[in-house]
Amino acid sequence: MSKHASLPGFRDFHPEEMARRTQIMAAWREVARRYGFEEYDGPPLESLELYIEKSGPEIVNQLFNFTDKGGRDVALRPEMTPTLVRMLGTRIKGLPRPVRWFSTPQLFRYEKQQRGRLREHFQLNMDIIGEESIVADADLLSAALEVLRVLGLTASDVVARVSDRRLLHAALVELGVSEENLAVAYNVIDKVERDPREVCLERLGAIGLDRERAEKALGLTDMTLEQFAAAHPGNEVIAKVAEDLRVYFAALGSLGFGDWVTFDMKIVRGLAYYTGVVFEIFDRRGELRAICGGGRYDKLFSALAGVDVPALGFGFGDVVLGELLKDRGLAATASRALDAMVIAIDDASREAALETVAALRGAGLAVIYPYRAGGVGKAMKAASASGARDTIMIGPDETARGVMKVKRMADGSEREMSVEEYLGELK
Amino acid sequence: MSKHASLPGFRDFHPEEMARRTQIMAAWREVARRYGFEEYDGPPLESLELYIEKSGPEIVNQLFNFTDKGGRDVALRPEMTPTLVRMLGTRIKGLPRPVRWFSTPQLFRYEKQQRGRLREHFQLNMDIIGEESIVADADLLSAALEVLRVLGLTASDVVARVSDRRLLHAALVELGVSEENLAVAYNVIDKVERDPREVCLERLGAIGLDRERAEKALGLTDMTLEQFAAAHPGNEVIAKVAEDLRVYFAALGSLGFGDWVTFDMKIVRGLAYYTGVVFEIFDRRGELRAICGGGRYDKLFSALAGVDVPALGFGFGDVVLGELLKDRGLAATASRALDAMVIAIDDASREAALETVAALRGAGLAVIYPYRAGGVGKAMKAASASGARDTIMIGPDETARGVMKVKRMADGSEREMSVEEYLGELK
Repeated sequence: MSKHASLPGFRDFHPEEMARRTQIMAAWREVARRYGFEEYDGPPLESLELYIEKSGPEIVNQLFNFTDKGGRDVALRPEMTPTLVRMLGTRIKGLPRPVRWFSTPQLFRYEKQQRGRLREHFQLNMDIIGEESIVADADLLSAALEVLRVLGLTASDVVARVSDRRLLHAALVELGVSEENLAVAYNVIDKVERDPREVCLERLGAIGLDRERAEKALGLTDMTLEQFAAAHPGNEVIAKVAEDLRVYFAALGSLGFGDWVTFDMKIVRGLAYYTGVVFEIFDRRGELRAICGGGRYDKLFSALAGVDVPALGFGFGDVVLGELLKDRGLAATASRALDAMVIAIDDASREAALETVAALRGAGLAVIYPYRAGGVGKAMKAASASGARDTIMIGPDETARGVMKVKRMADGSEREMSVEEYLGELK
Repeated sequence: MSKHASLPGFRDFHPEEMARRTQIMAAWREVARRYGFEEYDGPPLESLELYIEKSGPEIVNQLFNFTDKGGRDVALRPEMTPTLVRMLGTRIKGLPRPVRWFSTPQLFRYEKQQRGRLREHFQLNMDIIGEESIVADADLLSAALEVLRVLGLTASDVVARVSDRRLLHAALVELGVSEENLAVAYNVIDKVERDPREVCLERLGAIGLDRERAEKALGLTDMTLEQFAAAHPGNEVIAKVAEDLRVYFAALGSLGFGDWVTFDMKIVRGLAYYTGVVFEIFDRRGELRAICGGGRYDKLFSALAGVDVPALGFGFGDVVLGELLKDRGLAATASRALDAMVIAIDDASREAALETVAALRGAGLAVIYPYRAGGVGKAMKAASASGARDTIMIGPDETARGVMKVKRMADGSEREMSVEEYLGELK
């Protein structure tokens, strides 16, 4: 391994890449703030047990795990939810509900190496804990969509595909799928877009669905919500969930995201713990993996922390989003916006120049100056290369009169003004 | 280990603690921006070799290191400089100098467990690469001090103690300390405040300084810069460095930090690689460990990346700073500032209420609403508990007239106004 390389699957963020990460982080934080979420974070290293408990021992194959110098089995966090449950499990009883928490952790998985497959990424996690109402599900999805809107994307660029685990469960049970075979049936539906139809039918056959019922099961996946409800007359669970989802879509409409969402039974979400609404956001062109996914997981706090409290949340990674922003020409480029470079035109003006620098920075401006005394020509070149908006020159003449010479680099115009006048103009 | 605990030495950041972390991060970023630094980051996991190469094999005892599933020896980063050198080493030749880069990594050390000793912390790293001038050293220290000033601290709270490795080196050589014994002598000076005088003299004796010269060496540590220069007449190195330091302190004075800095030969800095100015910032009461430390390391890029380029930088951790802010009553408390809670007073007003929520959030306000339809009284209680500045009520009457009822929670006053009027007032 070259000593000048990062580990495979890990990114270096030079200022160019950092500007794009900062753009995404800022959008995440801004939306979380507008939606009234409070930020939390946990350690990037946790007890290995925490992840095994939630996901089973097979998760270990995908982890960066090791035994630390104190003999503890530990792992770099692959996801945030176990930490959230650990932190909130002991506190939730004393907090006014619902709790709205968000975090932007860096997560780690030892993925098999493939082109473009990373072993770390940043992920916005937003979770609402202690709320059963379907309107909370709508508010949560609208937050994810708001992130995309804040970044300049529209309903023409992305779509949220929404289903509900309870619908799929009820319909499969009605078709005769037994509880122990549900996981297989979910998996078939999850892959219905990728696998050949014949393979799907075969797999459903293997869990006891005859051809007719297997066709029926696959047929569900293309239905609208109303078609789905109409196809199950007399099923009270489905009637109730359908009514819930009508409230859900109406709320999203009122929140301004009617054009951004669609009912889609093909959305299952791999994780077994979802209990209600599930969603994934995709680019409309279908070129990228899911941008964001989440849903309701009402049983997880009970299973892991022994407190029976409903919850819902999503994970929203930086990688696919970053690709989408680049593709659409929306990715940030500049990483530094300098207001001014201050140049002393002789040694005697050095002190006045530094005092000016301090005054401008103290007022919040981004200001640099040449560290070495030297030719003004060279300094002017450096100012131009730095991308500073203004070059400010200070000489004995200016100092005596309490002014500075301000050159606006964009048009080359020069003016004499005091620090106060300069700051006043920028307000 | 309880499954409800984080690993020893690792912090959970509940919203209360996160607010304090955010306060510090914001100050770090704001000052870095004002000083024209660009942000970068590297992976928290790096090749173990990277750290051994810089610090020697004994560093491994302090690391979270392991062998990953691909057989690579890796470590959680204990410091940022090796990553900086790795990332910049290959690029520095093509970049306009000086390069000003900053980062705010979380760092990890497997410290022996003691009360309050953490195994992770966040650290602002600011580095200037490709600049020899001592004025760059002054600008760098002023950035560290500016962070403290931005957070509300003053020259009465903190002091930067500054020395220069070249002075100590020249003085010790003049006293007859050989090159191979310099590290021991540095170490004695570094600990002169903690170790008994007799121990210091003994240790200097062990490396060949007789009593008189040992006393002389210790005597250096209390001198002012001018005393130090006067005590070494005819030593050209010392004369030159003293002149450099006069420029340095003058620049800090012009930058507004004259009262914040002092010359102090007792500052050595443990790390062997410093080559010029070194500094540490302390609370004036002397109650805490160093807040920030750094200096010039002109040979490190050459040693690690094979490019001969001067550099200087500092590390500024969040833990001691956090303690200081708490002690001085300057730590942030609120983690969420809600502008409004919007309440539909009946089911028919639900849609209008959600549209209002969307309009206010779209304008950048932080807004929540009750997810469940229910009594207005209960919703008002929740609004009060949420800490929202305003409660906004929307009923059929208000909707018909295109207004909303705004209750300012601080004084209980109620007014009717449109969304536009409300937003206009807040501007």
